[in-house]
Amino acid sequence: MSSRVIPTRLADMVDSADRAALNSLVAEVVVGHFGFSVDGLPVVMPIAVASDGDTLLLHGSTGSWWLRQLATGIPVSMAITAVDGLVVARSAFESSMHYRSGVLFGRCVAVEGQEKVAALDVITEALIPGRTREVRASLPKELAATLVLRMIVDEFSVKVSHDWPEDTAADLATDVWAGVIPLVAVRSEPLPAPDLRAGIALPESVRRLAISS
Amino acid sequence: MSSRVIPTRLADMVDSADRAALNSLVAEVVVGHFGFSVDGLPVVMPIAVASDGDTLLLHGSTGSWWLRQLATGIPVSMAITAVDGLVVARSAFESSMHYRSGVLFGRCVAVEGQEKVAALDVITEALIPGRTREVRASLPKELAATLVLRMIVDEFSVKVSHDWPEDTAADLATDVWAGVIPLVAVRSEPLPAPDLRAGIALPESVRRLAISS
Repeated sequence: MSSRVIPTRLADMVDSADRAALNSLVAEVVVGHFGFSVDGLPVVMPIAVASDGDTLLLHGSTGSWWLRQLATGIPVSMAITAVDGLVVARSAFESSMHYRSGVLFGRCVAVEGQEKVAALDVITEALIPGRTREVRASLPKELAATLVLRMIVDEFSVKVSHDWPEDTAADLATDVWAGVIPLVAVRSEPLPAPDLRAGIALPESVRRLAISS
Repeated sequence: MSSRVIPTRLADMVDSADRAALNSLVAEVVVGHFGFSVDGLPVVMPIAVASDGDTLLLHGSTGSWWLRQLATGIPVSMAITAVDGLVVARSAFESSMHYRSGVLFGRCVAVEGQEKVAALDVITEALIPGRTREVRASLPKELAATLVLRMIVDEFSVKVSHDWPEDTAADLATDVWAGVIPLVAVRSEPLPAPDLRAGIALPESVRRLAISS
């Protein structure tokens, strides 16, 4: 076990290694931040991710320099974070945030052949459930232009902070307000493309997603 | 210039080095993801950030192993991302996201003394404008327990993707719907702490923040 993980587990990120909590965070937040080294220097990049069993799927252009770097199997870390609120305490010191935070360590491998087709469907369904039934299959040239990676997760932790302010007795006695300002990610009304042909109704997948928000 | 930055600028993250766009992204998203190496292995961690001129401020407990790592001046990368919508194209291949993405490279230095007090005020004001006037000053023991870091930004880029789906002529001729599902981060009604004493009204800072959402 690397020294990176030991202080993590002993200090800041102790909460749990709860796979269901991680998967539900990934499903909700969608975009993760991948960290890796290039010539010994750190790089962080954001990208959409989808859970697939104990692994994560991500995809992009075969022209992406950093996805090609990940495809070589270099060590990666990924963090995915939901900010759920601002904790307004009676002092600046005790003020903080509500959040859910997943931090993962592992490596990526390229996904090929029929597994690649299936993986792209998993990604599409994670973003818009039911959409794969509404669109055509990917063309061979589209598949050839797409790099699909699977992150093999060696270790992860999930930390949740959803507490009320914890002010001192001295601050509790003051007239300063304390509470939480919740933050919510909301999907608003779907906007049809300007080039959408007349008479094409909102599909079921998009309608359901709009209603669920 | 490192090889890390050259491919970045030539490929995926070309849009701009627009400081105002970066600062407004930081002000809105608040939480950035910091990448760094520990024993040659990458780690990514999320934390609240605030712009301060051309630099970024972050803070946490002096007990945080990874903030102490950053304080040694090791190279860091930071990414901050707003996901603004789902682009629903007529094919899975052309489907994508609306986003604003900032990627930064630099190093952190610890902030001490009076500069530390001022930096904490900048962070508080970035999260809840006007709050510093409503709470007491930090106590010496609180300042001693807090590590404040300033990220010196050597390079950064900001990329914005807010386009409509770009389907092929063949797909445009089909009856498949296309458009965008906007995603918005919303602040909902402030919740008073369970231990709030009776008769303490919502302060101006929190009220203004709730109204502005």
